[in-house]
Amino acid sequence: MTEPLVISVDAMGGDHGPHVVVPACAKALADRPHLRLLLHGDEAAIRAEMARHAILAERAEIRHTERVIAMDEKPAQAMRRGKGTSMWGAVEAIREGQAAAAVSAGNTGALMAISKLILRMSADLERPALVASIPHAGGVTTFLDVGANVDCDAERLVEFAIMGEAYHRAAHGVARPSVGLLNVGSEDMKGHEEVREAHRVLREGKIDLDYKGFVEGDDITRGAVQVVVTDGFTGNVALKAMEGVARFMSGELRSALTAGGPVTSVGAMLARPSLVRFRERISPPPVAPLLGLNGLVLKCHGSADERDFAKAIRAAADVAQSGFASEIERNMRRLPAALADAGPAAADGAA
Amino acid sequence: MTEPLVISVDAMGGDHGPHVVVPACAKALADRPHLRLLLHGDEAAIRAEMARHAILAERAEIRHTERVIAMDEKPAQAMRRGKGTSMWGAVEAIREGQAAAAVSAGNTGALMAISKLILRMSADLERPALVASIPHAGGVTTFLDVGANVDCDAERLVEFAIMGEAYHRAAHGVARPSVGLLNVGSEDMKGHEEVREAHRVLREGKIDLDYKGFVEGDDITRGAVQVVVTDGFTGNVALKAMEGVARFMSGELRSALTAGGPVTSVGAMLARPSLVRFRERISPPPVAPLLGLNGLVLKCHGSADERDFAKAIRAAADVAQSGFASEIERNMRRLPAALADAGPAAADGAA
Repeated sequence: MTEPLVISVDAMGGDHGPHVVVPACAKALADRPHLRLLLHGDEAAIRAEMARHAILAERAEIRHTERVIAMDEKPAQAMRRGKGTSMWGAVEAIREGQAAAAVSAGNTGALMAISKLILRMSADLERPALVASIPHAGGVTTFLDVGANVDCDAERLVEFAIMGEAYHRAAHGVARPSVGLLNVGSEDMKGHEEVREAHRVLREGKIDLDYKGFVEGDDITRGAVQVVVTDGFTGNVALKAMEGVARFMSGELRSALTAGGPVTSVGAMLARPSLVRFRERISPPPVAPLLGLNGLVLKCHGSADERDFAKAIRAAADVAQSGFASEIERNMRRLPAALADAGPAAADGAA
Repeated sequence: MTEPLVISVDAMGGDHGPHVVVPACAKALADRPHLRLLLHGDEAAIRAEMARHAILAERAEIRHTERVIAMDEKPAQAMRRGKGTSMWGAVEAIREGQAAAAVSAGNTGALMAISKLILRMSADLERPALVASIPHAGGVTTFLDVGANVDCDAERLVEFAIMGEAYHRAAHGVARPSVGLLNVGSEDMKGHEEVREAHRVLREGKIDLDYKGFVEGDDITRGAVQVVVTDGFTGNVALKAMEGVARFMSGELRSALTAGGPVTSVGAMLARPSLVRFRERISPPPVAPLLGLNGLVLKCHGSADERDFAKAIRAAADVAQSGFASEIERNMRRLPAALADAGPAAADGAA
């Protein structure tokens, strides 16, 4: 018999709290027979929701906490007063060896700060690297760092490549994901020194990755490579800019189809099932892992509904069961030699 | 009587050459009674197209050139062998005082390189700053630099703010455009040193701009400010990422509406006029100025049709007639003092 896999859940996080999280837990358990859950948060509120889902009685345990982290709480404040909150408890369960991963739909900045404080970084990053999954016509691009590690030298970029590649394999079951480095052109001499240096290291092949070279901004939605790596400043700006375009276009489409008069309305009604499919195809997966920690923490987006949060729990279970962490560790061990071998400029940058 | 305004046109540039450019010239002249044009390119090809547009006989002059810059030519090669091409001629007419501005739909990299070589930079930039105009629900955001000035210190960012603001006023007739600096958050301590230093300089108010502070990636399509400033690396990546999303969503919408069966097809047909309006609303203006040169050069996108290219010529005429260049110069003169006043960190960065 397979060992049960335990995932720790912040039941209070997100815009809806236990009202959405608890039913989502029931959904996820139904699909993953070896999964068990720890639900952190207000016992009374969780128990009320649990009563409606028989599957939870056997396979979920409540860990009562008195407090929650507010969605608008500053990371520094969350770190100071976070102990005793549902988010803190969910992450702490990893360190205590009670859970293989944690999922929260709460405040991103607070989750990053608390996770870093409790679990510590395994990589030499300022803060955890945050991964976005961007849909394209043929699948999903793993894009990192979008978590605002602002100053990234070549070594940081190579670390992102290692972590992002292992995550993509674990989350999407791709044997050998291709990796590209985001730049303003594809020639070797393009871009700033950090990106050219990381390019030299990755191109050398000392690190076990299917590295394809430089890619450009539009390659993210073209699916040119499966993992796109960039610094946290560029990644955060590009991700939000992309989200902005998606929101703008969706808004314009909606007004075009609702303000277009009765003929348009009939047309939109007839095309509705296709428009719903369209919306699904362009919607990104609801889950973003925080990478570089000694432990697996996944952020689910704040407005997640039951289906989204269930997807996030399933993703956490799948990634936790993969050889993800040890693969990252293996490639990370090759990094110092790869930096030294990639020529004097790269070695300087790593010093 | 108003002096005639002369715009210099690269008649061979773009995917279609004189076949699109010449009819576009006729369209633009019809709307701008004081405008005259210089058409650079193959005389026979231009003359054949001109024969169909009576308005051109009086108000456009051909400047024959033997050669053209290929759309895939490298900038370095374009600089070496550019003399005697239609693009070179169009830009040179500015330096020779024959034209107030030049428009080309040719190769962007070549146009930047040739313009820099012929006109020289007025600002202390690596290459001209390239402006993108991003549509949003309430208008257009002026976004720069997207032309890949990769290493930008605080002084460069402030220069972009000055140039972008003056361009927005000239192109869109807004008396006092608001300006924001792109960052990963809105608090003063966010971002890297260059962006925080530029923020200090702009916030001081020594430079005559309506500066609103930091903005984030999704503010570009929200219209939070009218001018969004960033370094050429981030700007180029963000612009291409945004274009990628727009292309992906348009493609998915098209397949949803065409592959959805007969009911969807009827629906799409009924909604067609609204979908066409939608496409127009989300399409960016077809013209991008190159800023920081001693002269006004505008890039029209390569796949421009007649209407697009006519818009580009009209934009060139409007911006050339505004007090654009002298406004930029006035604010640029305030820059050294503003950098020195913004505290020691800013002064260091400017040194």
